[in-house]
Amino acid sequence: MPSKPETAEKVMSLKESMSDWQQRVNSALEKRLPKAKIQPATLHQAMRSSVLLGGKRIRPVLVYAVGQCLNADKNVLDNPACAVEMIHAYSLIHDDLPAMDDDDLRRGQPTCHIRYGEAMAILAGDALQPLAFQILTRSKKFLPAENVLKMTEILAAASGSHGMAGGQAIDLESVGKKLNIAELENMHIHKTGALIRASVQLGALCQPDVSDAQLQALDHYGKCVGLAFQVHDDILDIEAPTETLGKPQGADAALNKPTYPAILGLSESKELALELHEDAISHLDMFDDKAQTLRDLSAYIIGREY
Amino acid sequence: MPSKPETAEKVMSLKESMSDWQQRVNSALEKRLPKAKIQPATLHQAMRSSVLLGGKRIRPVLVYAVGQCLNADKNVLDNPACAVEMIHAYSLIHDDLPAMDDDDLRRGQPTCHIRYGEAMAILAGDALQPLAFQILTRSKKFLPAENVLKMTEILAAASGSHGMAGGQAIDLESVGKKLNIAELENMHIHKTGALIRASVQLGALCQPDVSDAQLQALDHYGKCVGLAFQVHDDILDIEAPTETLGKPQGADAALNKPTYPAILGLSESKELALELHEDAISHLDMFDDKAQTLRDLSAYIIGREY
Repeated sequence: MPSKPETAEKVMSLKESMSDWQQRVNSALEKRLPKAKIQPATLHQAMRSSVLLGGKRIRPVLVYAVGQCLNADKNVLDNPACAVEMIHAYSLIHDDLPAMDDDDLRRGQPTCHIRYGEAMAILAGDALQPLAFQILTRSKKFLPAENVLKMTEILAAASGSHGMAGGQAIDLESVGKKLNIAELENMHIHKTGALIRASVQLGALCQPDVSDAQLQALDHYGKCVGLAFQVHDDILDIEAPTETLGKPQGADAALNKPTYPAILGLSESKELALELHEDAISHLDMFDDKAQTLRDLSAYIIGREY
Repeated sequence: MPSKPETAEKVMSLKESMSDWQQRVNSALEKRLPKAKIQPATLHQAMRSSVLLGGKRIRPVLVYAVGQCLNADKNVLDNPACAVEMIHAYSLIHDDLPAMDDDDLRRGQPTCHIRYGEAMAILAGDALQPLAFQILTRSKKFLPAENVLKMTEILAAASGSHGMAGGQAIDLESVGKKLNIAELENMHIHKTGALIRASVQLGALCQPDVSDAQLQALDHYGKCVGLAFQVHDDILDIEAPTETLGKPQGADAALNKPTYPAILGLSESKELALELHEDAISHLDMFDDKAQTLRDLSAYIIGREY
C-alpha cells in the first residue's frame, strides 16, 4: 500500500478511505494466508482464492473506521480486520455448498466447491476459522493480553450457535415458512448482524484507553448498522440488476426465502433501513468529527448499489 | 461426579483414573454445550448429540493426566479438556459427511447428517469450533491471560491447515495413491497427532509454574503418543472385530486408504508403535512417580482393543 501522510487522511472522502482500507486489508490478508505452494497446497490454494477473491470488505472497513474514530494505531487494526474477514470468507464457502445454498457462482467466479470439490471446500472453511483465531492472538504484540482475550471471546461468540452459525441454522429452517418481522429480525441479527457488530467491537478494543461509554455507544452503532446492512441487502435482491449484484436478481425470492420487502413491503423496508441508519449515527455524537467516516459508512451501507 | 479424596487418587489404576476423567469431562461438556431447548434448537441438539455420544475421550484424558503430573488444579483443566474434545467432535461430524468419508454410523449410532441432514451437520461442526475457543477463553478465571492466549494459539494452530484440517486435506488427496512411510507419517502427524499433541500442551499450560524443560519433555511425549495412537488405529482396522471397533473391520483397506500395516507390514507396525511408546515415556523421567498415569496411558494407547 502506498503510504500517505496521516494528516491527509483526515480529509479523505469515504470512498477514498474505503479504497485505502480495502487495499490495506487485502495486502494484510495476502501476507497472513498460508502460501499457495506450501503443503497441503490444494487446501492453501482453496483458502487463498476464496479469501482473496475480493468483495467490499465491509467488516474490515468497520474495524479500521472504528479504529480511526478512537485514534487507534492502524498496525494494531490489521489482525482483527483480517480475522473478521476470514470468518466471513469461511461462512461464504460453506454457504455455497450443495447441501446449503448450492451456488455455483460467487462474485462472478466459480465457487470454492466448484473449483476444488466439495470435500476440499468444507476443509478450506474449516481451516479458515482457526486461522482467524490464530491471527487474532497475534494482537498481543500490540495490546494487553486481557484485551486480546476479550476480542477472542467476542469473535468466537459472534461466530457460534448464538451468532452467525446460529443465524444460518434459523435461516435453514425458515425456507418456505412464513416468518413474522420479529422472527426475521432475530434471524438476521444472528446471521449477518453478529459478525458486523463484532467487527465494531474488535476495532474499539484496539484502543486500550477506550471507555465503557465509548464501547457501549459504538456497540449500539454496530448493532444498528448490522441490521441495516441486511435490510438493504434484501432490497437490493429485488432492485439491483443481476450484473451489478453478482448473483441473479430475485434469487432470494425465487428460493422462497423470507425477506424484509416480502414481509414489510418495499417502501416500508426502505424506511426501516433509514431509521436504523439514523439510530446508528445518533449514538456517535460524543466522538464529534472523528466519527464522520462511521456516519458516512452507515449512509453508504443503506445506499450501496451492490 | 462423586468427589473422592485427593490422596486416594494417587493410587488409582489407569482404568479408574480414565473412568473418573471421562465422567468428569462428560459432565463438564454437558454443562458447556448450549441447552437443547434453547433456540436454534435443532442446531443445539445436533451439537449436543454429536459431542455427548461418548467415546474414549483420549484428548481430555491427556489434559487431565498431564495436569495431574504437574499438580495442576483439576478445575482449571476442565475448560481446555472440553475445548479439545469439541474440536475433535466437530472434525468427526465433518469427516462423516457424504462429501468426505460418507459414514452412516459413528459409535454404532446414526451420524449427525443422517439424523439432522447434511446442512445442519455442516453447521453443527461450524458452531462447535468457535465454542471450543470461547470455552478456552474462560480459563482466564484461573490462569494468567498470557497463558490462556498461548493455549488459544496452540489450539488454533493444531486445528488449522498446518494441523488437523491440513491432515484431512493430505488424507483426501492420498486415497488410491501409493504413499511412502514419510508421507504417511506426515499425514498422521497433522491429522491425528496435532490435536493430541495440543491436548498435552494445554494440560501443561494449566500449571502456571511449568518450566520450559517440563513443557519440552511433555511436548515430546505428546508428539510420540499422537503418532502411536494412529499406528495402533491402523492395526486395529485390520485386527479388531467390527463389533468392538464400532465400524466395519478393514474399512480403511476397503477404501484403499494408505495405512501403516499396508506400507510396513503388520508386525513392523506393531514394533513401530512399541518404539513410539518407549520414546514417549523416555521423556518422563524428570517427573518420577507423578508421571505414572502418563506412562500407563501411553501403554494403553498402543494396547487398546478399540
